[in-house]
Amino acid sequence: MNNFRLESKELLVDESLLYTGNGYIGVRGNFEEGYPESYSTVRGAYIASFYETIDVEYGESAHGFPKTAQKLINVFDPQSIKIEIDGEQFSLFQGEVLNFHREMNIEKGYSLRDVEWVSPKGHHLKLEIKRMTSFETLELMLIDYTVTSVNYSGMIRVNSSIEGDVSNYTNADDPRVASKHAKVLSIAEKEIGDQSVFMAGVTNRSKLKMAVTMAHDITMDYKILDKSIEGHAQLQISEGASVTFAKYIVYTDSIRHSNLSGQGKRIIQNAVMKGKEYWYAAQKKYLDNFWKYAKVDVEGEGDVENSLNYNIYQLLASVGKDIHSNISAKGLSGEGYEGHYFWDTEIYIIPFFTLANPTIAKNLLMFRYNTLPYAKEEALIMGHTKGAKIPWRTISGSECSAYFPGGSAQYHINADVAYSNIQYYLYTLDLDYICDYGYEILYETARLWLEIGHFNDQGQFFITGVTGPDEYTAIVNNNYYTNAMAGYHLQWTVKFSQLLKERYPSSWEELVNKLQITENEINSMDRAGQRMFLPYSDELGINLQDDGFLNKKEWDFENVPKEKYPLVLNYHPLIIYSHKVLKQADTVLCHFLLDNAPDNVIQNSYYYYEKLTTHDSSLSPCVHSIMASRINNPEKAYHYLMDTLRLDLDNLHGNTKDGLHIANAGGAYMAIVYGFGGLRIKEDGLHLRPTKPPHWSKLTFRLNFRGALVKVTLGDQLLIETDQPIDILIDNKEYHIENRMETNYHERN
Amino acid sequence: MNNFRLESKELLVDESLLYTGNGYIGVRGNFEEGYPESYSTVRGAYIASFYETIDVEYGESAHGFPKTAQKLINVFDPQSIKIEIDGEQFSLFQGEVLNFHREMNIEKGYSLRDVEWVSPKGHHLKLEIKRMTSFETLELMLIDYTVTSVNYSGMIRVNSSIEGDVSNYTNADDPRVASKHAKVLSIAEKEIGDQSVFMAGVTNRSKLKMAVTMAHDITMDYKILDKSIEGHAQLQISEGASVTFAKYIVYTDSIRHSNLSGQGKRIIQNAVMKGKEYWYAAQKKYLDNFWKYAKVDVEGEGDVENSLNYNIYQLLASVGKDIHSNISAKGLSGEGYEGHYFWDTEIYIIPFFTLANPTIAKNLLMFRYNTLPYAKEEALIMGHTKGAKIPWRTISGSECSAYFPGGSAQYHINADVAYSNIQYYLYTLDLDYICDYGYEILYETARLWLEIGHFNDQGQFFITGVTGPDEYTAIVNNNYYTNAMAGYHLQWTVKFSQLLKERYPSSWEELVNKLQITENEINSMDRAGQRMFLPYSDELGINLQDDGFLNKKEWDFENVPKEKYPLVLNYHPLIIYSHKVLKQADTVLCHFLLDNAPDNVIQNSYYYYEKLTTHDSSLSPCVHSIMASRINNPEKAYHYLMDTLRLDLDNLHGNTKDGLHIANAGGAYMAIVYGFGGLRIKEDGLHLRPTKPPHWSKLTFRLNFRGALVKVTLGDQLLIETDQPIDILIDNKEYHIENRMETNYHERN
Repeated sequence: MNNFRLESKELLVDESLLYTGNGYIGVRGNFEEGYPESYSTVRGAYIASFYETIDVEYGESAHGFPKTAQKLINVFDPQSIKIEIDGEQFSLFQGEVLNFHREMNIEKGYSLRDVEWVSPKGHHLKLEIKRMTSFETLELMLIDYTVTSVNYSGMIRVNSSIEGDVSNYTNADDPRVASKHAKVLSIAEKEIGDQSVFMAGVTNRSKLKMAVTMAHDITMDYKILDKSIEGHAQLQISEGASVTFAKYIVYTDSIRHSNLSGQGKRIIQNAVMKGKEYWYAAQKKYLDNFWKYAKVDVEGEGDVENSLNYNIYQLLASVGKDIHSNISAKGLSGEGYEGHYFWDTEIYIIPFFTLANPTIAKNLLMFRYNTLPYAKEEALIMGHTKGAKIPWRTISGSECSAYFPGGSAQYHINADVAYSNIQYYLYTLDLDYICDYGYEILYETARLWLEIGHFNDQGQFFITGVTGPDEYTAIVNNNYYTNAMAGYHLQWTVKFSQLLKERYPSSWEELVNKLQITENEINSMDRAGQRMFLPYSDELGINLQDDGFLNKKEWDFENVPKEKYPLVLNYHPLIIYSHKVLKQADTVLCHFLLDNAPDNVIQNSYYYYEKLTTHDSSLSPCVHSIMASRINNPEKAYHYLMDTLRLDLDNLHGNTKDGLHIANAGGAYMAIVYGFGGLRIKEDGLHLRPTKPPHWSKLTFRLNFRGALVKVTLGDQLLIETDQPIDILIDNKEYHIENRMETNYHERN
Repeated sequence: MNNFRLESKELLVDESLLYTGNGYIGVRGNFEEGYPESYSTVRGAYIASFYETIDVEYGESAHGFPKTAQKLINVFDPQSIKIEIDGEQFSLFQGEVLNFHREMNIEKGYSLRDVEWVSPKGHHLKLEIKRMTSFETLELMLIDYTVTSVNYSGMIRVNSSIEGDVSNYTNADDPRVASKHAKVLSIAEKEIGDQSVFMAGVTNRSKLKMAVTMAHDITMDYKILDKSIEGHAQLQISEGASVTFAKYIVYTDSIRHSNLSGQGKRIIQNAVMKGKEYWYAAQKKYLDNFWKYAKVDVEGEGDVENSLNYNIYQLLASVGKDIHSNISAKGLSGEGYEGHYFWDTEIYIIPFFTLANPTIAKNLLMFRYNTLPYAKEEALIMGHTKGAKIPWRTISGSECSAYFPGGSAQYHINADVAYSNIQYYLYTLDLDYICDYGYEILYETARLWLEIGHFNDQGQFFITGVTGPDEYTAIVNNNYYTNAMAGYHLQWTVKFSQLLKERYPSSWEELVNKLQITENEINSMDRAGQRMFLPYSDELGINLQDDGFLNKKEWDFENVPKEKYPLVLNYHPLIIYSHKVLKQADTVLCHFLLDNAPDNVIQNSYYYYEKLTTHDSSLSPCVHSIMASRINNPEKAYHYLMDTLRLDLDNLHGNTKDGLHIANAGGAYMAIVYGFGGLRIKEDGLHLRPTKPPHWSKLTFRLNFRGALVKVTLGDQLLIETDQPIDILIDNKEYHIENRMETNYHERN
């Protein structure tokens, strides 16, 4: 992919597409030797959850608005490596480029840059540059050069450094990226040790510390400069021969490491000692195990399979692997949305991990448990009397949303978090998890429904003045998505209460005391869950996005020109809010997640809202793909899948430079497994409802289902293979499969 | 009033209550000699519309949010005068205060401070200090000292200065005042001239210039210091005798004056030459004429009359008297709401001036005409295709609202401005004004209803996604107030089109060309006006504040403690918005302004909403007073009048220090004339529907009705006296009055 892309705009996009990450560190895919001065670049490296605290400014503030926020920061740059021969710097922007190839190798877990280059003086070299961030040792990054000379003999000078003069990207005109606070990390320490060099930094305000330890597998002369540490080496090369060297980088930080320098040195010594081949092998081994459960195979259409697995790989590369981190909107690939964690995690990403890697799914769930104290505090800050309000966007756990109509107003995130806990339970049947952690999350967040909602005169439960997932409609009454999800949340909170009381009576008692649970409160939750009001239009046979949706003005889809999209960048929110126009799936998303509306309502709603949806949010096409499969329209499903798959690869939203759309990557997976596979996790078990685009000859996906490796193949027949006996429902019919089952499946279109 | 109030908190309030203003300059009532160091003070002087441009910050911005705003700034301080005898500084905070009296003399137009004081050494003085800002020469301020010695003979040293080291008041925690940008004015020039001294300043960013010219009627030695110009004099005084001197201050500014220094000197020379007695006489003359039409007499209850006329005086003192200025939320008495002009002008203040001083009313209307280009630009900035959107808050004409749910969302301001134009026309029958200015305002602002509203399937006109006057309810569909007012606006726009076409055909043609009016557009306005949807509840027999109002949660009035009010300072907007709780009159206000709903609906609505209203806004009690009269509940009307009258005098909202609540002052007048008088301006003429609190023996108010001085007295009988024949409707019955009419009127309670 991406061959001969050397324009500034293309390179900016490739910086994201070819970033290397492992969930702890993420390094954008810049050229080690840099670009010309005139090029725009976001040269960035990030540590998961490593943030600065910044003030949030308001022209007019109001009670309960967050006064500070967190911001993922660009840490010391490990990338710089410069090659010089015969007085000439290697650069793709001078001399002649004979060959230039870049790729992300998702089986082996590294990025590759292959170059064949003739210098202005005519020296002819080949370079192979690999980068890897290790899944085995998360602190470790490797940059590995092989330089082959075609016609040059002499010295190669290598200059390899850590750069401390870093700052964050800002743009005052785009609400999707930060507008200020570029320079927040200062150099605190620089040291040249025996076998490695060390540079530590500290943020101005959060006072978090991070450090880079650097070593090479060749001898280097190091020197400390004002804002960097540079290593120099000279290597002899002769015509037809190669030289190789590797740069080892280890990140440590004060969130996770008690001794940044000591632990950094120990890790890097071990890394250099084992040598790069060890790390390539370890990487491959880790990924073999990952792909065993995660890989999707598509036969019958060129690069769909590659694109799909590329997206899946990015989920792994971006997801936090310790208790301190989650998965941010852009993973670790860029600075968009300031590195914040959103509901994307629960609704777009956990569904993948639940199926493919429940351990990681659980880790993501635990993040909300660990940050629950912040969520409880936030509820009180706003003026609620109890409960927990999950932050709309956060790193450390406290609310960072500075625009409440499309932020704090999205109370549904409470139900989203509950939903992913419930789904995790139903998939794994891990009641211990619920007892130890999940129940507390569910209960505290459920309390908020009783705070913000109420029973009306007819005893129906109303939730008013909130914003649903569709951010082009704000502060409404009885948003269908919110109400239905809150209902599911409340009902399961009550069910789990019952279950824990029966199955873990003593733990239950502890919970009752800890959370000050009363029977009265549980009864209210029960009644609210059962009497939840779900707006519906008899005339249209659809669920209404909210009470007032039909009263709004039609959007002039016909005459508003293309360049006015995304609307958020071209219209005041008030104009958008007053029209029947959606940024993203809302009712349709709920119909996917709960799958409990009548078929005709699901279908009517889909076609009704689809016409009104701009898909200005990257969270939208994937849901429309899934639900197109659900309503037996695989062509539409395929069409939306393509928008999803190629969103970043083709920079369809024009902002891939700010980082990959990680939720969309999860959505691509979901469009396959939940869409074509029709997978649903319900109380009665795991459901499939398979279909596929007619022009694909075969579609295969895998699951890690309660320890079993399950392989589902949709070809002419439906083939299910498993290494342990499983029970499964196909088109609502129960099957017990010992190890293999082949059967017909519906052609639905 | 305000005797022996010497605590810091009291003095802060008195700074506002005793400020002297004339609509061009406003100077807060500080002590010339200052307070102790430990005292809080907002020592301020303001020039109408003299602003700095400031950046507006958003944690998350969106398209069309104002990027800059204006802010009324504190200009050079004219107040400082220090008196020293025998090495002792005169100060009320040392020695002994035998007498201390302050008052605002609203007949003569000056403030007075009377002091009898014994110094620590035992020297006994009496001081009489008057301050006046001239209504005849708006640039002029006078501070006039008379010092009488009881037991001291010797020298009195006088130090009188202009202070250039000024800054604005800020408070980051109160959304009602500015949070930053304290220091924005720099000294540009200092000069000692023959007969006066001169100091000019310039703002950092708006680059507006202002200057103070100072002179005294005694000989002074002046010297220029770093941030001030000081004058010194020594006067001989002997036991039992007095000395007097006056300080003359002239403000000029680059908005109004082409030569700040030259004009300043000329004005001050003229002022000093004429001498202070001239200015007192001129002030009295101006006010005599004002009170002729404005005074309200109340017999039968102590200080009601005084309080009422105090409020009326503040309207005159605060209202802009040139084309550059309007009337800000706090007049020129303080810095609350950053000196911005709101809908307060049209709905709470113009109703007074229309009746008492139509020239000033017209000047206020003209402000919107003069700033219409900004309003048209704002509509386009937001993404509308045409029309004008009156700014929610502004000084120069461009939108300054940084919180759109309670700002730009209040589209009703377009109708409010139209309403005041229509009312002005109906009262004056000045069709020339409409033709030359008013129509353009009406037409451009009416266009916006077609932009934001639409015809639904049944052909009803809906306006969605806007906020009505009640700021505790935001972004709703079909706000009754907005819709009804928009309907009135649209219908009158169409009527005026007809009227101008018939009566001024050539001007009409010019308007058609200038505004690109089409018949189609007028037809749409006509249809929208006629088919405007007005939400109504059959069950409750009330107009609904908006489509979704009844679906919201009850506010727990019983259990929410008093200190949680105003709610805006204690709850996140989302919590407030999701409840049935009002900050201020909304539907009830509309029932007042349009007076076209059935009596029972007006009454039911009043009692329904009254229970839900916190009156956290100072714009609320006055409307409830007016409408209590309307529904024949004079006791309630009296009760709300008291809240209105005493709001600032008793600092009922606790923030009078930030300036007087000028709209509330207008509301006090309205509670009398529109409330007890039952005055309404309608197409068929001027209506009265008199009533009064039973314990008042007599209530008298005056009108300037089409040139006639009309005096209305509600005693045992209704007495109307006029110096020209007038037609008037009393209880909907037409009367022609040549010069006097006496009749019975209803006891309504």
